[in-house]
Amino acid sequence: MTYTLGDLAARYGCDLLGDPNIEISHFSTLDSGQTGSLSFFSSRSYVKKLRETKASAVIIRPDDIEHCSVGAIITDDPYLLYSKIVELLHPLRVINPGISESAAIEKNSNISDSCYIGPLTSISDGVKINENVYIGPGCVIHGDIEIARNSRLHANITIINSVKIGERTQIHPGVVIGADGFGNVKTLNGWKKINQIGGVIIGDDVEIGSNTTIDRGSIENTVIENGVRLDNLIQIGHNTVIGEHTAIASSAAIAGSVNIGKNCMIAGQVGIVGHIEICDDVRINGAAVVTKDIKKPGIYSGSIPFEDDKKWKKLVAKFKRSLTN
Amino acid sequence: MTYTLGDLAARYGCDLLGDPNIEISHFSTLDSGQTGSLSFFSSRSYVKKLRETKASAVIIRPDDIEHCSVGAIITDDPYLLYSKIVELLHPLRVINPGISESAAIEKNSNISDSCYIGPLTSISDGVKINENVYIGPGCVIHGDIEIARNSRLHANITIINSVKIGERTQIHPGVVIGADGFGNVKTLNGWKKINQIGGVIIGDDVEIGSNTTIDRGSIENTVIENGVRLDNLIQIGHNTVIGEHTAIASSAAIAGSVNIGKNCMIAGQVGIVGHIEICDDVRINGAAVVTKDIKKPGIYSGSIPFEDDKKWKKLVAKFKRSLTN
Amino acid sequence: MTYTLGDLAARYGCDLLGDPNIEISHFSTLDSGQTGSLSFFSSRSYVKKLRETKASAVIIRPDDIEHCSVGAIITDDPYLLYSKIVELLHPLRVINPGISESAAIEKNSNISDSCYIGPLTSISDGVKINENVYIGPGCVIHGDIEIARNSRLHANITIINSVKIGERTQIHPGVVIGADGFGNVKTLNGWKKINQIGGVIIGDDVEIGSNTTIDRGSIENTVIENGVRLDNLIQIGHNTVIGEHTAIASSAAIAGSVNIGKNCMIAGQVGIVGHIEICDDVRINGAAVVTKDIKKPGIYSGSIPFEDDKKWKKLVAKFKRSLTN
Repeated sequence: MTYTLGDLAARYGCDLLGDPNIEISHFSTLDSGQTGSLSFFSSRSYVKKLRETKASAVIIRPDDIEHCSVGAIITDDPYLLYSKIVELLHPLRVINPGISESAAIEKNSNISDSCYIGPLTSISDGVKINENVYIGPGCVIHGDIEIARNSRLHANITIINSVKIGERTQIHPGVVIGADGFGNVKTLNGWKKINQIGGVIIGDDVEIGSNTTIDRGSIENTVIENGVRLDNLIQIGHNTVIGEHTAIASSAAIAGSVNIGKNCMIAGQVGIVGHIEICDDVRINGAAVVTKDIKKPGIYSGSIPFEDDKKWKKLVAKFKRSLTN
Repeated sequence: MTYTLGDLAARYGCDLLGDPNIEISHFSTLDSGQTGSLSFFSSRSYVKKLRETKASAVIIRPDDIEHCSVGAIITDDPYLLYSKIVELLHPLRVINPGISESAAIEKNSNISDSCYIGPLTSISDGVKINENVYIGPGCVIHGDIEIARNSRLHANITIINSVKIGERTQIHPGVVIGADGFGNVKTLNGWKKINQIGGVIIGDDVEIGSNTTIDRGSIENTVIENGVRLDNLIQIGHNTVIGEHTAIASSAAIAGSVNIGKNCMIAGQVGIVGHIEICDDVRINGAAVVTKDIKKPGIYSGSIPFEDDKKWKKLVAKFKRSLTN
Repeated sequence: MTYTLGDLAARYGCDLLGDPNIEISHFSTLDSGQTGSLSFFSSRSYVKKLRETKASAVIIRPDDIEHCSVGAIITDDPYLLYSKIVELLHPLRVINPGISESAAIEKNSNISDSCYIGPLTSISDGVKINENVYIGPGCVIHGDIEIARNSRLHANITIINSVKIGERTQIHPGVVIGADGFGNVKTLNGWKKINQIGGVIIGDDVEIGSNTTIDRGSIENTVIENGVRLDNLIQIGHNTVIGEHTAIASSAAIAGSVNIGKNCMIAGQVGIVGHIEICDDVRINGAAVVTKDIKKPGIYSGSIPFEDDKKWKKLVAKFKRSLTN
């Protein structure tokens, strides 16, 4: 699909610079620009790249157009407009309804005719899949599961036991939702497992990154509210609730029975211990260890940036000697 | 299945409060209690919930019965009794023997007739699966593998090369056992891979959480002893030994050739470097970095709790200036 | 396959000690040595084990032969020679060409006749697999994917969207390559997903550990250069470049648009924030948090080793009081 620069500017209500008949067929970075590509410029540190780009046009702020010698679409928020035009030029794949021949579908499942079910995917009795859902290859959807309209499970995903997934939610490969959490009670003969009987509720417009795990609740449900963003390799323990529009970056570990508010941003490798409450609008910086409730919106931190090893060793030695000072 | 409160009290040798004919059909939290549900009370911070619960009965300590206005089963350890009654009311699913039509079973495997093998699971020659084992959908069991009686591999699990798994062990989705560890030797032309030839031995009554990885030994075996509990997204390096009844929480990273004793508790995100020995009865708190042997039972720690970002930045600045003081 | 000690010494140009007719059929540790096994000795802390070993022979440094009472192959680098002989005695499995009956192969894929495709593996139109590639059971290879000669994807691996993989590369179970990265723009209505359109380029002689995730580039490609070693459960964010022969240990989290040079060694649990540049020949010790560029080769650190909990608590208290001193 090709658009002219004039089409694009008009569609998003922007001014343009240069020939409105310039044709745009795909997106590129400034570096890899070529005839027909559109790029975006949002950081002054790339002025040299902007000056040298071979892209046909650039999405740019009004203040930056002096550095631009190709076509331009002018906007105050190039990053947002980029997200819109990349969606226009590179939309999600169209869903071709149908069930792959090699999929294993049990009879008492309920799958809308408008869905696609990929090869070697297994769907058990009791699963309900609503309109226009894409289930990629190699998935396991077994149990009392319902997936709402327009959601996409890309490949090799495991959804088991009792799980509800909202509309337009995207789940990436290797994700496990609904497996037993870490429930054990100490006895004289070692650990006794506590059978887990809760489920997982995932809202609308959620995205869950590769190999992330979300445990079922121990009795009630683990809950991921609407609009949440989870990156890769994150642990969400049983009974935890993640509030609307909260985003969590890679490799964070959220223990069980944690309650995180809305619109929070939790950086990579953050650890949150069990039974913690975090209010709305909290930002937690990378690798912090959260050991008590956060009751006030704001920014919180907990990691010490690295140093040259010799200096670091001296700092650690001084820290450890501090008790005797 | 429904029990009367009297049945339950008698079965576990407990006193009861209220009408012994109260019928109990399922478990609930205090919050979500309803007619027919049993809940439990183990923390005084929930007294209000106890007073207001609509559960038919509650498992409770003798000291707390004054706050209880519904039926009660009285015990000194409500959490333990909860684990027993939840198992009674919500037992593990019964295994219906049989091999799913879509499973791919090689001829020279040896699978007991009492096992269940799920759809789209692949089992190779050389695999032996003993009585009453449940292998869920989408698993790969390939190599010189033996799985003892009554174990359950829930879904989408990979067991390869040379692995022995004990009795009553449960493994959750996405777990990888027996893959090559990180064995490399530096040469003038970069890294040379060291072929890995060992296996993995998993004991009885072990539980392994979703997406955890346990590498095969480089020459001998990696060993997970009886009763060990591993949470989700844990790395266990090659040749490592985890002693009986040790529990490790989510996202811990245990390097190769580590030897951890019995009855240890290792919290989330703990890192243990290679070739470390840790004795029995050690507890390591969250996100600690363990860089030398631990020879004495006790509690060890290594992370600094988070702070408000402004305060944290000052603390870090002070720490980094400490060398010049 | 059996070799004599004389054969092995001659093959690798080493002196030997003892009877050249000693027969060697397999590798063992010193502890588990037996008739026919070869072991290696590279650390003085195991002198006792060397003295007592029942292995038929040992790979050993010239300086250590006084402690050796069995046969020996003498070399300055026992670890390197071990890697070579273990490869000789325990080579990678021979690839038996063929496509398993239960694999789901779409018609417009292009698979060399010399490849093995395992059971229940799904390969889509558009995939090209070159000579002598091993694709184990349960894999999903879907999209615009090319895999070069002699590579091995062991089991249950997901490669999607747009990915190129070089020669002799090995990928372990549960790895996800090419899934969408964490691309979101904040709007008044919450997060808006940025469609990801880039791919992943993996070089020759790379090894990727179990359950590691490598996201596709947002516009261009994420790149793993030749000879890179990635351990288990590592996150590689979108657009990141890992330079030749760099090794990264388990559970490290590398954010997006990071550029890591050649010959770096990054230890377990290291976190690297987005848009960081790291030059060649950098070593980063365990659990360090890297928050700014590294422009000078060398060793860098950032974690404080654990302590006994009582001592640690005092250290933390002192650290937190430091502002008021």
